[in-house]
Amino acid sequence: MSQFADRLIDATRRLGPLCVGIDPHASRIPELFGGDTPSGLAAWGMALVDMARGRVAAVKPQVGLFERHGPEGMAALQAVARRAMKAGLIVIMDAKRGDIGSTAEGYAAAYLAEDAPFPSDCLTVNPYMGLDTLEPFLKRAEAHGKGLAVLARTSNPGSADFQALMPDSQPLWAHVATALTAASERLMGATGWSSLMLVAGATGPDEARRLRELAPRALFLVPGYGAQGAGAAEALAGFVAGPQGLEGGLVNASRSVTFPVAAQEAAGFSEWQLAIGQAIDAAQADLKKATQT
Amino acid sequence: MSQFADRLIDATRRLGPLCVGIDPHASRIPELFGGDTPSGLAAWGMALVDMARGRVAAVKPQVGLFERHGPEGMAALQAVARRAMKAGLIVIMDAKRGDIGSTAEGYAAAYLAEDAPFPSDCLTVNPYMGLDTLEPFLKRAEAHGKGLAVLARTSNPGSADFQALMPDSQPLWAHVATALTAASERLMGATGWSSLMLVAGATGPDEARRLRELAPRALFLVPGYGAQGAGAAEALAGFVAGPQGLEGGLVNASRSVTFPVAAQEAAGFSEWQLAIGQAIDAAQADLKKATQT
Repeated sequence: MSQFADRLIDATRRLGPLCVGIDPHASRIPELFGGDTPSGLAAWGMALVDMARGRVAAVKPQVGLFERHGPEGMAALQAVARRAMKAGLIVIMDAKRGDIGSTAEGYAAAYLAEDAPFPSDCLTVNPYMGLDTLEPFLKRAEAHGKGLAVLARTSNPGSADFQALMPDSQPLWAHVATALTAASERLMGATGWSSLMLVAGATGPDEARRLRELAPRALFLVPGYGAQGAGAAEALAGFVAGPQGLEGGLVNASRSVTFPVAAQEAAGFSEWQLAIGQAIDAAQADLKKATQT
Repeated sequence: MSQFADRLIDATRRLGPLCVGIDPHASRIPELFGGDTPSGLAAWGMALVDMARGRVAAVKPQVGLFERHGPEGMAALQAVARRAMKAGLIVIMDAKRGDIGSTAEGYAAAYLAEDAPFPSDCLTVNPYMGLDTLEPFLKRAEAHGKGLAVLARTSNPGSADFQALMPDSQPLWAHVATALTAASERLMGATGWSSLMLVAGATGPDEARRLRELAPRALFLVPGYGAQGAGAAEALAGFVAGPQGLEGGLVNASRSVTFPVAAQEAAGFSEWQLAIGQAIDAAQADLKKATQT
């Protein structure tokens, strides 16, 4: 059984660190896919998967933007996730779930089981409720070679409200990272990277460097690059030297690569494809260049 | 437009503080409803709603245990929530969602919009990502007279891992409660209770009393009563004197009232109904007695 961390690092060495975020914002799904309807979300998401294939290591569907359409929206999410798995893309399911044991088992079954209805390689989870609430996810990850991405320092303006509080002279996000050391060891891959990822926002490069010191073997999931304002160098702040340049995780871009102006103005499908392909390639090239400095 | 807090306090004054948790654990859905299948979950959950009607103020479906069945499980959740709304029960949707702005808007639309696919009176949310991530939920609650239940001090053994860290000599959960003061004011109802609830686990009565000092007008959502080990007195630790005795929130019971032995061994539907009715009535009576001390 291959480990998530090994699959991820292999794919990023080949293709670069870009992860395409599949975030179906209500007002932005092009009419050519059917607009903001469950079938529109499925068609648009699957077309994005096809464009991401061979260009990037991973895609990251944003569950909340599918969930707003109810069971039919979740069926669209399922269709997108299945297509991405089939395409050999790594699927980072951005659900930010977290709950006590028996309910956490439910979420783990939904996303990380071998026969999960929403097939995923890795699930984002929220640590607030404590380490025991992460255990059911860890067990699934261990059993099936999957990954977990635990929120540490997020990219939003309000992330400091609680994450930057300083118990014992360390920010909360540092406590979270430190508390995960044993879990990180349990998910260690052959490449020396762990399948326990940390979410380390690109809008906080200093924090990312500090997180790297605290968790030297954790792959980072870096949101905030592109539309949220951070550049490639900031996004890679927590990356380290590897055989093909800087490595150590995924940098997510959503709006900048899935809703570029040229795609929103596209008259037809082939024009849309061209615009999306160019936007993905440009973001990947920008990041890859920064891995070589 | 009525406010969530006013509807809740009115209903608990009439009926008592019990909330029936609808947690479809895989191995426990009786065969007479179809067992652990999407249609079994829907039939069992709707039957529970019918038993809860007139006996309790509120029900609390546990989303993760529906989500493990994929889109079909979410359709079962939808059927249960719709039936509960129609029955005049208050629906506390236990989803523990939380994400940055645009995604939080997606979750808020899924659960708190007027035409939400999963109709709810109140949604549980996780504060780790910061106050800005709660804003889309607050806006929906303000607009539609809905509620929010923010995780403060949860009932699980590991809750202390991060929630009890002590920045500036106050536990993290106290910082969360204090930071929500302005939001609580925005959702203030005519009864003097706010529609911004706090989750205050029954397994921490001292913490509940401290939370009550910090947030005198927040309704508490109290998990941990019954199967998780806390008694009625502990569950009501954060409640205060009202016109009909102690009041100030909901006390949730799941396994003890939805899977009593007599219900699990029931030979048929009427026997199951009898067992569930008795278990709910006994828990409500236990709690109501404790409100009179």
